Amino acid sequence: MAVLVVGTVTLDTVETPSKRVEDVLGGSGVYAAVAASFFGNPVRLIGVVGTDFPHAYTDFLDTRGIDLRGLKRVNGGKSFRWGGRYTDDFNVRDTLFTELNVVSDFQPVLPETYKETPYLFLANNPPGLQLSIIEQATQPKLIVCDTMDFWINEEREALEALLARVDILILNDSEALLLTGESNLMRAAQIILRQGPKRVIIKKGEHGAISVTASSFFSVPAYPLTQVVDPTGAGDSFAGGMMGYLASIEDTSEKAIRSAMVYGTVVASFNIEGFSISRQKDVQFSEISSRYCELQEAVRF
Amino acid sequence: MAVLVVGTVTLDTVETPSKRVEDVLGGSGVYAAVAASFFGNPVRLIGVVGTDFPHAYTDFLDTRGIDLRGLKRVNGGKSFRWGGRYTDDFNVRDTLFTELNVVSDFQPVLPETYKETPYLFLANNPPGLQLSIIEQATQPKLIVCDTMDFWINEEREALEALLARVDILILNDSEALLLTGESNLMRAAQIILRQGPKRVIIKKGEHGAISVTASSFFSVPAYPLTQVVDPTGAGDSFAGGMMGYLASIEDTSEKAIRSAMVYGTVVASFNIEGFSISRQKDVQFSEISSRYCELQEAVRF
Repeated sequence: MAVLVVGTVTLDTVETPSKRVEDVLGGSGVYAAVAASFFGNPVRLIGVVGTDFPHAYTDFLDTRGIDLRGLKRVNGGKSFRWGGRYTDDFNVRDTLFTELNVVSDFQPVLPETYKETPYLFLANNPPGLQLSIIEQATQPKLIVCDTMDFWINEEREALEALLARVDILILNDSEALLLTGESNLMRAAQIILRQGPKRVIIKKGEHGAISVTASSFFSVPAYPLTQVVDPTGAGDSFAGGMMGYLASIEDTSEKAIRSAMVYGTVVASFNIEGFSISRQKDVQFSEISSRYCELQEAVRF
Repeated sequence: MAVLVVGTVTLDTVETPSKRVEDVLGGSGVYAAVAASFFGNPVRLIGVVGTDFPHAYTDFLDTRGIDLRGLKRVNGGKSFRWGGRYTDDFNVRDTLFTELNVVSDFQPVLPETYKETPYLFLANNPPGLQLSIIEQATQPKLIVCDTMDFWINEEREALEALLARVDILILNDSEALLLTGESNLMRAAQIILRQGPKRVIIKKGEHGAISVTASSFFSVPAYPLTQVVDPTGAGDSFAGGMMGYLASIEDTSEKAIRSAMVYGTVVASFNIEGFSISRQKDVQFSEISSRYCELQEAVRF
C-alpha cells in the first residue's frame, strides 16, 4: 500500500565538530520519504520548493521511486533553508537560521492520485496544515503525525483539534513533557492518549523510543553506534521507516507497529552515519535486515 | 551460593518535592544487600556504623536474613550520614552534606566465614578498599564493582589497578564518559573493556541499562513508573538484585547476566517507589516475577 508523506523539503546548512556542509538536501518530508522508500511500496511526497532547488535533488528522490507530483515548485520562489550547529559532541543543537521562504504561505492540495493513500505521515508542520491534509484524504487507514515545541507553545488549540483526529502521535520526550505539563514520561503519555491518539510514540534520541497505548508499553533501544556524523533527520527517518514498513505489510496491529518501530530505528541509525541522506543512498535492504536482527538479539533475555 | 556485599551503611536525610525524611536507613551496602536478599541465598554484608546506629535498622537487616557478622559497630563512633535534595522533579540531585565519620578510616577485614564467598559486589568505595576485599577473598567466582566520579577524578591510579582485577564494572553513563574522556557511550564501553573488566554495565537511570562485552550488547529499559518517590539507592538495588539472582542460579553466562539485569531493574523499580527501603519491605517475590514478565513483554517484537 502507499504512504503519503507531508513535510518540508529544504536546503540545509549543518555544522558539526568535524565538518560543515551547505545547502544539502534535507527537510522532514525528505527524510521520512527516503526512509519509507526502503520498503518497496509507493511513497508520495507533499511539499514545496523554490526555483533555486537543485534538480539533482529531485532527480535523486525520483530514483528512489518517490512520487513527486505533490511537490510544488514555486516560480521565482526561494526554498526553505535551515541552518544548525551541533556542539558538545552532538549533545547541543543550535539553530543558526530558519528561512521559511516558499513554505510560509503553502496551502497543500492533494493531487487526485494522492487522495486515496491509506498511510499518512504528517511530519512536523503547522497543525492547521496537518489537519487540512486529513480532511482531503478520502480513505485513510493510519494517520500518524509529528509536532514540535513551537506548535505546542504557539498553536495549542489547533494542535488539540489535530490530536483528536490522529491515530498515532510521534514526538520527542521533551515535547511530550511540554505538551502535558508533566515531568514523568509515562504520565505524559497517558494524558496524550486522553487527547485523541490511540497510541503515542515518544522518541528519546540515543535512548531509543517507547510506544504507549491504553493497554500496552513497548520500548526499543537506539541502534548502538560508535560514530555519529549528523543526527539531523533521525526522528523523521524513524517515522518514515516505520510508515514504509507498515504500508508494506498492510497491518497496524501492535505486533506490526513494534516491528515497524524497530525498522524505523534501524533506518534512523543509517541516517545518523552521514550528512543529509548520503548514507541512505548506499544502504541495501540486507543491511537493514541485519541491524534489525542485531536489535532483536540486543533485547533478548 | 552466597553473595558478599561491601558498601556503606548510612543514616540518610532526603528531601524531595513532596516530603523530607531524616536519618533513614540507607547506604550502598544496605540497598544492595536488601535487593540481593530477595533471591533466597545467603547475603553477607561488610560495612561500618557508629553507636548511634539504630538497632531497629540492624534488626530489619537481620530479618531479611542478611549476615551482619561483617558489620562493624565502632564504639563511640558516629555513623556515615548523607543528605540529599531532589529538585526539578527528580532531574537534579544536590548533595546537602556528607559526613564520613566512622567510614573515614575503615579498613575492612573479612570474617573467616566470608572469605570463601563466591559472588562479590563491591559497591562504591575507595578503589583501594575495594581491592583489599578482592585480595582477602579466597574463591571469588564473580567480582563486580561500582565506582563514582569522585574516585575517577581523585584516585584514578588505584581505580585502574582495581579494574584489572574485576569481572564486571557497573557505573553510570556520565561516569563511563568521565572515566574514558569519551562522548560516545559505546566507545566508552569499549575503552573500559580494554582496562580489564570482561563486561561493563552502564546504568542510564530512567533510560534503563546496557551491558557491553567484546562480543555482545544488551539493553534493558527501566521499568515504566508513573510515580517516583525517592530514587536514592536505585543503582545499588539494581546491582544487588542482579548479584542475588546470579548467586541463586550459580551461573554467570551471558543469558544469566541478562536475566539478572532485568531482575535488578525490577528490584530498583520497587526501591524508587518509597523512601529508604520502605517499599522493599512489603514486596513479595511474586510481584518481582510479575514485573519481570511485564518487561519481557515490553521489549518483545
